[in-house]
Amino acid sequence: MKRRTLMNLVARAGGTTAVLTTLKAMGWLPAHAQSSQRPTLQAQSGNNTSVLILGAGLAGMTAAYELEKAGYSCRILEAYDRAGGRCWTVRGGDSITEFDQTETVPFDRDPSLYFNLGPARIPYHHTAVLGYCKEFGVPLEVIVNENRAAYFQDDGAFGGGTIQNRQVVNDSRGYVAELLAKAINRNALDQEVSADEREKLLDFVSRFGNLNDDYAYAGSSRAGYHVVPGAADAAGDLAEPLAFSSLLDSAFWRYKMHFGEGYNQAATMLQPVGGMDQIAKAFVQRVGHLITYNAIVNQIRKTPEGVSVVYTQGTRGEITEATADFAICTFPLSVLNGIEADFSAAHQAAIAASAGSYANAVKVAFQSRRFWEEEHHIYGGISWTESDITQIWYPSGGFHQAQGTLVGAYIWDNPIAARWEPMTKTERLTQAIADGSKIHPDYATSVSAANGCSVAWGKIPYIQGGWMEWEDDTRATAYAVLNQPDDTIYLAGEHLSYLTGWQEGAILSAHEAVRGIASRVQATHA
Amino acid sequence: MKRRTLMNLVARAGGTTAVLTTLKAMGWLPAHAQSSQRPTLQAQSGNNTSVLILGAGLAGMTAAYELEKAGYSCRILEAYDRAGGRCWTVRGGDSITEFDQTETVPFDRDPSLYFNLGPARIPYHHTAVLGYCKEFGVPLEVIVNENRAAYFQDDGAFGGGTIQNRQVVNDSRGYVAELLAKAINRNALDQEVSADEREKLLDFVSRFGNLNDDYAYAGSSRAGYHVVPGAADAAGDLAEPLAFSSLLDSAFWRYKMHFGEGYNQAATMLQPVGGMDQIAKAFVQRVGHLITYNAIVNQIRKTPEGVSVVYTQGTRGEITEATADFAICTFPLSVLNGIEADFSAAHQAAIAASAGSYANAVKVAFQSRRFWEEEHHIYGGISWTESDITQIWYPSGGFHQAQGTLVGAYIWDNPIAARWEPMTKTERLTQAIADGSKIHPDYATSVSAANGCSVAWGKIPYIQGGWMEWEDDTRATAYAVLNQPDDTIYLAGEHLSYLTGWQEGAILSAHEAVRGIASRVQATHA
Repeated sequence: MKRRTLMNLVARAGGTTAVLTTLKAMGWLPAHAQSSQRPTLQAQSGNNTSVLILGAGLAGMTAAYELEKAGYSCRILEAYDRAGGRCWTVRGGDSITEFDQTETVPFDRDPSLYFNLGPARIPYHHTAVLGYCKEFGVPLEVIVNENRAAYFQDDGAFGGGTIQNRQVVNDSRGYVAELLAKAINRNALDQEVSADEREKLLDFVSRFGNLNDDYAYAGSSRAGYHVVPGAADAAGDLAEPLAFSSLLDSAFWRYKMHFGEGYNQAATMLQPVGGMDQIAKAFVQRVGHLITYNAIVNQIRKTPEGVSVVYTQGTRGEITEATADFAICTFPLSVLNGIEADFSAAHQAAIAASAGSYANAVKVAFQSRRFWEEEHHIYGGISWTESDITQIWYPSGGFHQAQGTLVGAYIWDNPIAARWEPMTKTERLTQAIADGSKIHPDYATSVSAANGCSVAWGKIPYIQGGWMEWEDDTRATAYAVLNQPDDTIYLAGEHLSYLTGWQEGAILSAHEAVRGIASRVQATHA
Repeated sequence: MKRRTLMNLVARAGGTTAVLTTLKAMGWLPAHAQSSQRPTLQAQSGNNTSVLILGAGLAGMTAAYELEKAGYSCRILEAYDRAGGRCWTVRGGDSITEFDQTETVPFDRDPSLYFNLGPARIPYHHTAVLGYCKEFGVPLEVIVNENRAAYFQDDGAFGGGTIQNRQVVNDSRGYVAELLAKAINRNALDQEVSADEREKLLDFVSRFGNLNDDYAYAGSSRAGYHVVPGAADAAGDLAEPLAFSSLLDSAFWRYKMHFGEGYNQAATMLQPVGGMDQIAKAFVQRVGHLITYNAIVNQIRKTPEGVSVVYTQGTRGEITEATADFAICTFPLSVLNGIEADFSAAHQAAIAASAGSYANAVKVAFQSRRFWEEEHHIYGGISWTESDITQIWYPSGGFHQAQGTLVGAYIWDNPIAARWEPMTKTERLTQAIADGSKIHPDYATSVSAANGCSVAWGKIPYIQGGWMEWEDDTRATAYAVLNQPDDTIYLAGEHLSYLTGWQEGAILSAHEAVRGIASRVQATHA
């Protein structure tokens, strides 16, 4: 019997109390306060064991932090002169280097003018990353993900004009409710709805959609006013509802309208004050002494004693070998696939099969006068478009300051990214302005290519991709293999999680590697 | 013809482009960027004209600020030793005095531990109050109004247990969509849906509710997991959907589930950093020199020269008269009704008829360990209950600090408030803890009557109510009268707006009074 069928039987037999009791008893209620548990390693348990960690992103630094506390001897090799990996925030004067071009970020040198090239938000239930923020004292603030004041725009609907989010969302709700009320009143759902539930259901539907007394949707204050209410005789006048057929013609509802309800996108969403790299910096304060920067890994070898890694050190190009009992390799598979390594045939095949499955995210940002606040009353959140830029993402902090930074494109659809990757910075910014002008007609008076910068993650050396995208079949095959250690080599990173693209996935994956090594070491000592 | 009917005709005839063009041409689109215009008074136009303002709340201070800039001679009489009126924030050591009791706020003396007794949030479209925040440099931050991690609780449903917001909201959406899809597939809506729209509509409905391939709702990641996804083999397991009959039995959907979609409640909502009274303090910096504090108004008289107000000054009880060409009286009608005044019979009757129509809001707050973050991953937002306390409202700032302040009751339903008003502070806090324990079973281990305080606005001298609640009939009668000046006396305040209970209403109403006086003065000079 399906759980749902059972629960409906319980509800009919025992009422709502019985439902909750049963759900609780069966462990089927959602995880209200489920927290990821960090590995709990005994103090000194890692004495005399060395671990070489490849990559000083969040996965690598998490592993080093947890292992070092237990007495392991850790070293991290990092290709860049900075730690953090994709947890990377740029500010005025910083460089963004792709394989074939380097941009210098043209923002003013003001700490509030930052651009998160990689992750930019943290869901409330990502308890591992939030736990480190708390432990390390990284101040957090709310990031607005869903803003009813922002816009939708689709060349193929409403004449390409912008429609306010609150109207799209709430007119849609209204029409759904109106249609359902009609069906109920036509007795089309009598087999689902008992006679005594019917009035209650109609009331439910009516309030769901804010219908009028005739169960019709005729606009709603939820959707907004075309003359807003104020003082004295300004009673306000509701906006005319959008024609439902026009809403259906739009692409808004395919996913963008529901984006903010997503498991990893729903409120409350958080961000570190001042940029996502505050998290990376907090890790560096604790494990920075373990990092060798500018270390380009060339070979990963298994040895009778453990692992040997050959790397090129810094500008001098010195070839050096590092050895350890274990390794944790956090390199993206796109990078790892190009490195000589003694992986098992199964691991090598899994890496090769997955190396090309990255979302090659492209982002663009501009410094600008805060016209979105001044003229549109948009404080944070996202305007969505069917144009290439996909969205304009407004800052959730620094409100009412003169200048702000705006994400002018955030593309993760690979066919679009493939068009944007070969572009020069100027070409990307020029197209971002053209696309953005469909949302904000005066866009070009505020943003300019001279005040913008861009990143195409697929072209960032030593990272080569935004995040892994597993399919059902590769989850069952390559993913399963890569989650097993290859002798003394453990892999970790966002790609080895069900939270790909999220810092939480990288951290939880590191915890798995730490647990794996610790249990091996413990078994040896026992 | 109804506008909606017309728009549907336009959609059928001309498609979506025609719809937008028509909506734009008719001015029926929502007011995307509509801003309230401040009164624009000519410099020096108020020279030689005096205005006496009664009450140093936001309405009174707004009027003084705008009039003084134009050369008017302004004075404000304020009953308290502080300005702001209901824009009132308390911190450790502050007093809250009701007619028959005084509480001292027991919070630690930390500026982040504050309690907004009155207004606590600002919608993005309240452009008047936001405009002053911008002009005065009052820093703003996001306040979370709708948090998918918070709870619903109803003694009459689910055995009185707590259900997570995201599950209530998204399971409801799912069932609405499933029922509608069934009706469409049974051809119950064929008269509304053309054959070629049918597939698209089914797709729309399916995505709206996150249905499976059979158009059934079987849970959704939107509603959450009972085993959350993580790294390695932690694929996650969706929460069992709530039985729809149990959802219908609950009171969640009557309005609490839709609260965050309200015109004045939808994202983005904002708050001043450090407490709502930062706005009052910013006004005081500009008009504080005009305020006479501790001035209790006894009489409001019309004179041949204008107005005369008799007031008792401060602790010495000195009786003093103030005169001016005009008065702007911002007292709540509940207070004004008790003051001897030369109002016209129509005004007097309107005041008397409305004086009892206030929402007598009651609020309770506790200082506490942030158990809601530590144990429930709740960062801001509201948990709703059918118990008296109505809600627990979590702070949207100071995340991860050791201590925080929690609104442990926010009651605006007068029958409930009538029970809470006569209670002592300890009785209120004790009941708040009992009610709150239904949401957080371990509540009493974190909050205590010793760390709480309360306010019953109906019992606050010189204010006597939370906000005005007009009915359709009183809007048509008393409200219309009171928006007209009575000779040289203008009334202002949140009560003279369609945004009652909001600072925006008070400010816009003050703008109306300022405009009214200015046009009279201009007419006299012309």
